[in-house]
Amino acid sequence: MSDTWGQTIRCKAAVAWEAGKPLVIEEVEVAPPQKGEVRIKILFTSLCHTDVYFWEAKGQTPLFPRIFGHEAGGVVESVGEGVAELKPGDHVLPVFTGECKQCRHCKSAESNMCELLRINTDRGEMISDGKTRFSKDGKPIYHFLGTSTFSEYTVVHEGCVAKINPEAPLDTVCILSCGMSTGLGATLNVAKPTKGSTVAIFGLGAVGLAAAEGARLSGASRIIGIDLNPNRFNDAKKFGVTEFINPKDHGDKPVQQVIAEMTDGGVDRSVECTGNVNAMISAFECVHDGWGVAVLVGVPNKDDAFKTHPVNVLNERTLKGTFFGNYKPRSDIPGVVELYMKKELELEKFITHRIHFSEINKAFDYMLKGESLRCIISMD
Amino acid sequence: MSDTWGQTIRCKAAVAWEAGKPLVIEEVEVAPPQKGEVRIKILFTSLCHTDVYFWEAKGQTPLFPRIFGHEAGGVVESVGEGVAELKPGDHVLPVFTGECKQCRHCKSAESNMCELLRINTDRGEMISDGKTRFSKDGKPIYHFLGTSTFSEYTVVHEGCVAKINPEAPLDTVCILSCGMSTGLGATLNVAKPTKGSTVAIFGLGAVGLAAAEGARLSGASRIIGIDLNPNRFNDAKKFGVTEFINPKDHGDKPVQQVIAEMTDGGVDRSVECTGNVNAMISAFECVHDGWGVAVLVGVPNKDDAFKTHPVNVLNERTLKGTFFGNYKPRSDIPGVVELYMKKELELEKFITHRIHFSEINKAFDYMLKGESLRCIISMD
Repeated sequence: MSDTWGQTIRCKAAVAWEAGKPLVIEEVEVAPPQKGEVRIKILFTSLCHTDVYFWEAKGQTPLFPRIFGHEAGGVVESVGEGVAELKPGDHVLPVFTGECKQCRHCKSAESNMCELLRINTDRGEMISDGKTRFSKDGKPIYHFLGTSTFSEYTVVHEGCVAKINPEAPLDTVCILSCGMSTGLGATLNVAKPTKGSTVAIFGLGAVGLAAAEGARLSGASRIIGIDLNPNRFNDAKKFGVTEFINPKDHGDKPVQQVIAEMTDGGVDRSVECTGNVNAMISAFECVHDGWGVAVLVGVPNKDDAFKTHPVNVLNERTLKGTFFGNYKPRSDIPGVVELYMKKELELEKFITHRIHFSEINKAFDYMLKGESLRCIISMD
Repeated sequence: MSDTWGQTIRCKAAVAWEAGKPLVIEEVEVAPPQKGEVRIKILFTSLCHTDVYFWEAKGQTPLFPRIFGHEAGGVVESVGEGVAELKPGDHVLPVFTGECKQCRHCKSAESNMCELLRINTDRGEMISDGKTRFSKDGKPIYHFLGTSTFSEYTVVHEGCVAKINPEAPLDTVCILSCGMSTGLGATLNVAKPTKGSTVAIFGLGAVGLAAAEGARLSGASRIIGIDLNPNRFNDAKKFGVTEFINPKDHGDKPVQQVIAEMTDGGVDRSVECTGNVNAMISAFECVHDGWGVAVLVGVPNKDDAFKTHPVNVLNERTLKGTFFGNYKPRSDIPGVVELYMKKELELEKFITHRIHFSEINKAFDYMLKGESLRCIISMD
């Protein structure tokens, strides 16, 4: 048992005081974990688009001050009452969605959308008592996605903690907390291309490249990347992307038609990682009739409508959606870490930058300029 | 070898001379089968909505005179050059779509949309030479769906002929040629409900009831039938339908919401058998997030648009379409006949009327009045 067990810890955290303003490294108080909660010493964290989106607070009700961050790796410092599967010293990845192991979704082999711990971007407090575990000078600081990893210590519901192989390097596998697993699982668990398949990936950002990595692992023979930014193709080759389409190069011809012409009628699988509703429609209509499967990953706008002629469905195409790559955080993520440990899954190529926690605002700059895939932030 | 081998046969056929006008029993000539073709003595045939739709010719280019009919059972009379898998005397079901066993679709485990022999409602001639095998006084009579079973003899491409157990009663299993297999396969092969599942069936006509029969065979615990005609519910109980919703009884409340309230969030599987695009959207949106699968069977109008918010997809719902219940005619239909022979699949309850070929126009009346599920027409 650590000296800090049951005590409030004072540590550094990067606090977002206002929408869109640089984070400020502050000394904050982190209360001990309550029943069913775990306090984690974060060693490495990384920045994902979702952090930036809610930090900018352009589309949602702002909730500040808040501690962002949801991709991270760390070590359990202490656990609250009733936590049976975790103990101090365990190496863990906190995850923005959870697995209570009790609800219909957790009991279903097909779903990972836990009723209790499903992602909630509005919630800024812990579920158990509706209070925050973070404060500064006695005033609460809100949580984000139940993880808030831009802090030396954080408190997370035990259902949102994946216990992983302690030999796995946390400075690398921390990126499996969110984006990489989302893209990888979309391909491996949902699209499920067979060896020799043709796969189209819409959007060659980090999630799309993780989806391409899934296609490479599946033995796809052609991986066609679609992106409006031609500069992304060179990098994408490292992720197994074999061909590139920039829809802007084809005038009025819909990209689904370009793909059909390249592939004798359509690809076997497609994975949509942009969130643009027209890309979603193209991703669906570009799969081959008879057996094609399209998987939607990207998050759409509130008022979007997915629209297609029903005959495109009737001709034996399948449309599926996925959330966090259909991985159940506690049950499945340890296995994804093992894929990396066996050197099947390559993660290093996703890490384009490494900085110290004190420079965290640089990570936002890199992402906003489109320069980074993943920037690892070291707490030490 | 029969006396008629290689000869033109003169026999009775019900000829549609004009759109929407009663069929006329005529003596016609049926030429011998050419390379890759089979001439079948039809013993029993039945009427399906698709016959009526093209006979009315309200939406398509009319093609007359034509011999309709595509659900039937018969015996092979003779075969053309190169036909290896069929011989005179074989009991067969002609099917409106085919299986060449050579194309990418036939080689795919997932598709039954044969490139060569896929349904073609416009074609009125044989594929090999673009000519008809039917004539009267030397003038051609067009084929329908490559089957034209409203004739004592017909000529069909060998790829569109399922060879079945000779002990199976053709006066019953003939209905597996089209509608019953379409509905049954939609559930068994595509929706695949597990034991204890909740299944919604949109449209309680013959195809929808066959889909319900598939749900019953799968061990579904609740089968919810949705239809605008409340009279259909009583009959539907025989097919395992346990609950009934008439959308008209719920005012402005969308039927997907009614279903969600009845089922704690949605059904596990749904099968859409009406072809109405709003029913398709409801069928998709009424399945449970996380694991729900919706299957579209009904044929939409030309200008319909399937429209839903992409979040309905992202929340791990699956939308699939199917054609002929995903059965490959030659490979799979014999097995469906065996399901009936083992008394698992019940077919008798679909047969509401039996008439002689000379009264064939009555079958059209029964269907147009909504009185029949299947009317068996005996050629003898």
